[in-house]
Amino acid sequence: MLQFERLATDPASHARRGRLTLRHGVVQTPIFMPVGTYGTVKGVLPQSLQQMGAEIILGNTFHLWLRPGLEVVQTFGGLHRFENWHAPILTDSGGFQVWSLGAMRKISEQGVQFASPVNGDKLFLSPEVSMQIQTVLDSDIAMQFDECTPYWQGEGATQGGSGHVTSEAEARASMALSLRWARRSKAEFERLQNPNALFGIVQGGMFEHLRLESLQALVELDLPGYAIGGVSVGEPKELMRQIMAHTPHRLPAHKPRYLMGVGTPEDLVQGVADGVDMFDCVMPTRNARNGTLFTRYGDLKIRNARHRHDPQPIDPSCSCSACAGPDGLSWEQGGRGGFSRAYLHHLERCGEMLAPMLASIHNLHYYLNLMREVRAALEGGVFAAWRLRFAADRSRGV
Amino acid sequence: MLQFERLATDPASHARRGRLTLRHGVVQTPIFMPVGTYGTVKGVLPQSLQQMGAEIILGNTFHLWLRPGLEVVQTFGGLHRFENWHAPILTDSGGFQVWSLGAMRKISEQGVQFASPVNGDKLFLSPEVSMQIQTVLDSDIAMQFDECTPYWQGEGATQGGSGHVTSEAEARASMALSLRWARRSKAEFERLQNPNALFGIVQGGMFEHLRLESLQALVELDLPGYAIGGVSVGEPKELMRQIMAHTPHRLPAHKPRYLMGVGTPEDLVQGVADGVDMFDCVMPTRNARNGTLFTRYGDLKIRNARHRHDPQPIDPSCSCSACAGPDGLSWEQGGRGGFSRAYLHHLERCGEMLAPMLASIHNLHYYLNLMREVRAALEGGVFAAWRLRFAADRSRGV
Repeated sequence: MLQFERLATDPASHARRGRLTLRHGVVQTPIFMPVGTYGTVKGVLPQSLQQMGAEIILGNTFHLWLRPGLEVVQTFGGLHRFENWHAPILTDSGGFQVWSLGAMRKISEQGVQFASPVNGDKLFLSPEVSMQIQTVLDSDIAMQFDECTPYWQGEGATQGGSGHVTSEAEARASMALSLRWARRSKAEFERLQNPNALFGIVQGGMFEHLRLESLQALVELDLPGYAIGGVSVGEPKELMRQIMAHTPHRLPAHKPRYLMGVGTPEDLVQGVADGVDMFDCVMPTRNARNGTLFTRYGDLKIRNARHRHDPQPIDPSCSCSACAGPDGLSWEQGGRGGFSRAYLHHLERCGEMLAPMLASIHNLHYYLNLMREVRAALEGGVFAAWRLRFAADRSRGV
Repeated sequence: MLQFERLATDPASHARRGRLTLRHGVVQTPIFMPVGTYGTVKGVLPQSLQQMGAEIILGNTFHLWLRPGLEVVQTFGGLHRFENWHAPILTDSGGFQVWSLGAMRKISEQGVQFASPVNGDKLFLSPEVSMQIQTVLDSDIAMQFDECTPYWQGEGATQGGSGHVTSEAEARASMALSLRWARRSKAEFERLQNPNALFGIVQGGMFEHLRLESLQALVELDLPGYAIGGVSVGEPKELMRQIMAHTPHRLPAHKPRYLMGVGTPEDLVQGVADGVDMFDCVMPTRNARNGTLFTRYGDLKIRNARHRHDPQPIDPSCSCSACAGPDGLSWEQGGRGGFSRAYLHHLERCGEMLAPMLASIHNLHYYLNLMREVRAALEGGVFAAWRLRFAADRSRGV
């Protein structure tokens, strides 16, 4: 099941404020979805996710298929009870992950043959298998099985080597394969009587006319929601922004739109303006583990020696439990219940687990709160003004 | 400041139920104190520590002196505000840590010369320096600077090699040095007008008459509390138990008694019966990170394949947030809000941070709850019966 209501739209952009009702709960859009690859958002307790207002999280079909394996998840009647997260979950199809295996996999019309990176077992993933796995996972939103068209073809990936930028012919063939897989995904999803919602994925590489072809064919399938895939795969930022400007707003207005694997705070805000409702990215948690923290006034490297004595929290305007403590009163509001930059700097230097724990809480809260501010601005009809302030604040420097 | 009241005593053992009032709060004894070496109990949010009922935690003088360094802690007016823990803190003296450096340090009457394991700087630790550091840390309980008499002397430590078991003459010389350092610690602590409480440490190796000499001389110093040091340093368990049976109950009855660095749940219960009020040990957090979990019915290795499908929490009788979820209703009470063994097994196999996070919460809660049960049994006058049940439960197997 899936219901999507548009609550407000921005006259000056494609931005929309919406409400998405899924089998395990309601999601306010635009929304950021924390990534929980193996059934856990890295370094964060489910309770903390709830506290910071996460309404939907991701799981990775490919990873969960390999570990813990379907028969374990089946014992728990799906992913929700297994990982103790009782709000909505979206799962990807595994397509992006098998694509990432590079030389270790072989793609045919039927599907993808590959060796398990865990134990070397020969495995086969196809639209049908992906739907079967996602049905066992019982995610609120399942994604069609697709081929992620790479930006760079052949050896060396984007690092150079003997490859080349994907040609139009290659992108077309890949996009057409993804479309055939979309139809097979839909047929299998229906055959399995999966009660959740299946999203299609627009491909087409960096070619706008291919994106349009993909989109139009997917719209004919009348799926409950659509994603834009194959961006943020190594292409220059301008190309990504070009596809973002082209595709999302052309998708059906009354259905939710999901931009996969994007991006920085600036990318998200641009994505909203381009008409996107849903985002996911590993950046907040991955950067947290590397000591890069997002703040209203720009990004902050906590390892930097200038934080050694600093009594301020990561972001003085932030109300997360790392910056503001349990009562949520930010430093700017006079709250002194949070952890200082000096303390986080110390934890990071000592390799203490509490450093990534607090940093992950903060970065995820930053992303979730950014979307909260976006939603409030859309509701108040002040999105354009809010964007200017956001850009000015972020470039001020921390 | 320090106040200690005995609320109940056990007629059949040396066990006492007490209340310890320190500068930053009240501590119910017998108590277990989680270890926060670098100003963080590894893998646990201070908020979680509060939720599980921790009333006092440890910090390590040696480690905190090296990182973040005193001038940083001074900026925060002490350790409490720096690490965001506003209840009592006990700090050790650094003696045990410099002793652990082995060949890298040189002990003289004046103190210990050693090279910093962080950056190689030449450093000097003495009773006076230790008191100066602990005064800056502003811990509620400071420990005298002592020499931890090893069980094994010379190369190879307890692993054999060319060394030997500490002789009586060696133990006597070491104990006498610790006594002279106790007097210097007290003098410096008073000169600094440290408003907290200084504990003396009984040494004497595995020799009861040396322990008695040490104890009597320390009692003459009239310190507000006493610890038993130099146990759990590689000696056979029987020798440790022999010292536990000998020393604690001979210490002044109206002052708190602290057994340093001990031990297993069974050791703690025995320690209470021997008259000990305070315990610390890295075992709950270290074992958590290795996947060894304490339960009412024995210890559990979460990596074991038999947990792969198990829907039960770590300990069905446990009310910690890992076993019982946020509402604290245990599995046995019908609560189903906790995390399963199958999920923890999966997290552990995937190397996910959430595994040690949940395991640390559980293990610390187990230790803190064990002491809660001990206190209730002492209050109810049923400690002897409780011990029998504890031993039977623990040996039942999980």
